Amino acid sequence: MKAISQTFQEISPADFFYRNREIAGFANPVRAIFSAIRELVENSLDATEPMGILPDIYIRLSNMSDEDENFYVLRVKDNGSGIPADYVPLAFCQFLFSSKYKLKQSRGTFGLGGTMTILYGQITTNKPVKVISSTGPPKIYEYTLMIDIQRNRPIVLDRRIYDNNDKWHGTIVEVNLEGDYPKAMPKILEYLKQTAIVNPYANITFVDPRGRLYKFERTVAKLPRQPRETLPHPHGIDVETVYRIIRITRCKTLLDFMQEHFHRVGKRTAQRFLEFAGFPEDADPKKLKPEEVVRLVQAMKNFNEFLPPDADCLSPLGEDILKAGILKELEPEFVAVTQRSPSAYSGHPFIVEVGIAYGGKIPVGEDLILYRFANKIPLVYDESGDVSWRIIKSINWRNYGLMPGMPFAVLVHICSTKIPWKTVGKEMIADRPEVSREILNGIRDVARQLGAYLSKKEKAKYEKTRLSIFAKYLPKIAEFSAKLAGKEKIPDIGELLRRARKIEED
Amino acid sequence: MKAISQTFQEISPADFFYRNREIAGFANPVRAIFSAIRELVENSLDATEPMGILPDIYIRLSNMSDEDENFYVLRVKDNGSGIPADYVPLAFCQFLFSSKYKLKQSRGTFGLGGTMTILYGQITTNKPVKVISSTGPPKIYEYTLMIDIQRNRPIVLDRRIYDNNDKWHGTIVEVNLEGDYPKAMPKILEYLKQTAIVNPYANITFVDPRGRLYKFERTVAKLPRQPRETLPHPHGIDVETVYRIIRITRCKTLLDFMQEHFHRVGKRTAQRFLEFAGFPEDADPKKLKPEEVVRLVQAMKNFNEFLPPDADCLSPLGEDILKAGILKELEPEFVAVTQRSPSAYSGHPFIVEVGIAYGGKIPVGEDLILYRFANKIPLVYDESGDVSWRIIKSINWRNYGLMPGMPFAVLVHICSTKIPWKTVGKEMIADRPEVSREILNGIRDVARQLGAYLSKKEKAKYEKTRLSIFAKYLPKIAEFSAKLAGKEKIPDIGELLRRARKIEED
Repeated sequence: MKAISQTFQEISPADFFYRNREIAGFANPVRAIFSAIRELVENSLDATEPMGILPDIYIRLSNMSDEDENFYVLRVKDNGSGIPADYVPLAFCQFLFSSKYKLKQSRGTFGLGGTMTILYGQITTNKPVKVISSTGPPKIYEYTLMIDIQRNRPIVLDRRIYDNNDKWHGTIVEVNLEGDYPKAMPKILEYLKQTAIVNPYANITFVDPRGRLYKFERTVAKLPRQPRETLPHPHGIDVETVYRIIRITRCKTLLDFMQEHFHRVGKRTAQRFLEFAGFPEDADPKKLKPEEVVRLVQAMKNFNEFLPPDADCLSPLGEDILKAGILKELEPEFVAVTQRSPSAYSGHPFIVEVGIAYGGKIPVGEDLILYRFANKIPLVYDESGDVSWRIIKSINWRNYGLMPGMPFAVLVHICSTKIPWKTVGKEMIADRPEVSREILNGIRDVARQLGAYLSKKEKAKYEKTRLSIFAKYLPKIAEFSAKLAGKEKIPDIGELLRRARKIEED
Repeated sequence: MKAISQTFQEISPADFFYRNREIAGFANPVRAIFSAIRELVENSLDATEPMGILPDIYIRLSNMSDEDENFYVLRVKDNGSGIPADYVPLAFCQFLFSSKYKLKQSRGTFGLGGTMTILYGQITTNKPVKVISSTGPPKIYEYTLMIDIQRNRPIVLDRRIYDNNDKWHGTIVEVNLEGDYPKAMPKILEYLKQTAIVNPYANITFVDPRGRLYKFERTVAKLPRQPRETLPHPHGIDVETVYRIIRITRCKTLLDFMQEHFHRVGKRTAQRFLEFAGFPEDADPKKLKPEEVVRLVQAMKNFNEFLPPDADCLSPLGEDILKAGILKELEPEFVAVTQRSPSAYSGHPFIVEVGIAYGGKIPVGEDLILYRFANKIPLVYDESGDVSWRIIKSINWRNYGLMPGMPFAVLVHICSTKIPWKTVGKEMIADRPEVSREILNGIRDVARQLGAYLSKKEKAKYEKTRLSIFAKYLPKIAEFSAKLAGKEKIPDIGELLRRARKIEED
């Protein structure tokens, strides 16, 4: 055997994501410019809607200089809550520092997107990012920042403070980056259009490098119900979570402990559970032995009488908003939407919303048209790996009088505190039986509605033809009959036509 | 506007992967037990082969207790180089601490797998991991460890030191975890079988919870060429990398700097490049301004005269080993293999190796059979999202006299310092034009060889029939002709038959 030389090394989280940026959606200049816009827009939406603010988002992408077409300045401005001044450097230029590690629905989940965008901009252009933010008067803060990637720390190059005389609140991020806008353009526009479908209460403006203006205007002035932070559900628990709770709890008994720290556990449920699990009600949680903690966690997973998680921590669109968004951006002839009841997988609550749109400006494609959304984010890459795609391909559309090639589109929206992502790039949703069942039932529901509409439309068309034949020939028959009978006065056929129409209306 | 309350929080890398364990392959008990075995086996292979050791790997999975079927003890033992005692806690129980952050081919890339396995075991069973390791005499170290997830630090519960009288070197990891072996079994056995195909120089033994023994025996006593650590290629560079090099360089001029720190840059190339980029040869790298660094990096990307990266840092199997592995595990009637010349994408060198196996024990399936490998790792999940699957589906197999349903299997092996993974779970390879071209050409090459074999076989079969007809009727014709001619002696037809056979052989 040769002498062994292994060198070990510790790297920072920033360095890890720098080395593996493709898994976060920054593989190449085409994908990177798409991801940069997506991440900043989503941060803006998360800084407005949950605070009760109707979002106004302004995106401007321009060339860094006239000489080189591959370098851009991306500026995204929102009217959100703003970031408290002292947190700006950390929130933007340190990995694994975020406001998003909470148990409620939000667009961001990994808390990486903004920082990843800034890192990518820095390693391709060597320029700092500019962040301007205010949480409201009296001041506006402007930071010029870079990331110390090896140490995972922000570098503050400059900080300026301005008076906030216009009562502005919000955040502006201006980042320089390498990109390939011409190639990324179709996906970017598709992304913005679909964002407008699921966020019809937002104004989104995009000015592209050639100066073209894309406006997606607000048509709904009402925000969806906002999510509330929630406690963990016993079915979604693991040993680590229980230890973290034990470390901070003030409860002296397991009976209190169960009610205080877990979602939907009242006194009676707690009592029944502890009996099931074989723990005395007055046991001190802080004195549980390691193997007892495991036994408690296993019992939580196996106890079937916990109430399912409720949906307070979720923020679905609701049928009205979803419908408004579809009508606004897709302009179909017919639309049907449905919201499924809340359900749960492994203790994580979720709600599926489904829409179907037919005719009007819906294009006729060779294949089915599917729009996928998760926590109000459109998913525009890697469709074929997604659970919803598998499901719409498995449906026998003829049962509903439909088939691929007819002008209809299916929309699937999944809200959850924990979307079962396949990847950090957040493009594909994994196949969980509980989730796929809801998607399938939702699609069936709206497909039935569309089927009924189409068959009614078909029937109406038929009746119209029938009546027009009556209307055409009855007068002639009446005239002819009158002549034949030698009568001068042609009988009034109005009553007859009215009756034919009435039959139809019954 | 409501009062704004955003709470920011910093989490450790361990906490990040704890919260997002599904993206690393630990989504549920079925997948987790598969991933645990895979990660530990790959660590063992990486601890043997690169050190010039023929791998002996022993895997034992047993139930933790008789009562609960869902808890297992997984023990993986190798004869590798061992981990220096002081590094054991960090190497196993701290995220982003690894020996794998080097520019050469290795199975591990993220340096997460082992630690992720231990974390998953800990949060499902609350039990520590046991690691026994020795780099050779005089001592063997046995650690009992847990992970402080919130702080990303190892907790050493126990450390024992034994005399190493048998000159043993290697590592044993024993981890307790929740799992579902019955459901994971088919994938685990498939994984081990395919690992044996690409590592025919390894002995792999697996004892499963029901005591069944699976042995994959070494049939090749030769290791593939080992990879050498390499310098970064100018085409794969970014600003951050150049800064890191500037920080540590001792070069006083750009001319030296280019030759000293970049792959395949000699004096003449460096001179031509600096002229192309517009930098004086004697410029001091440490005095470059930020915008000059960007200009240098851009010039490196755009300069077409750098030599392509060489393949020293890669460790392909080679045609002999690949063939041996296929013959050993698949037992086909015919096998063809090809190794493509080294190529590169974005400055990352790679080599594609392709095999095709026909007949024998190759099963007849409804669809094509594809075995995918990356850096000697089999990929057994998410086939449909992989570049190789797309390519084999796009090929017109009839051109080679083949079609789905015939008993043949295609094997694609990609080696690279940077496999273009789609996800941290390392199951799908992304579609890079340079890579897909090599895969396609490789498959065409072996498909042609198989096509030629089959057509030859067909012809041989035809000739055999033809000759057997000659052999059957010529004597009768000879006899009959002799009688007819009134001759007694029947002529010798041996010469005639030999000539018929000779025509065939020409």
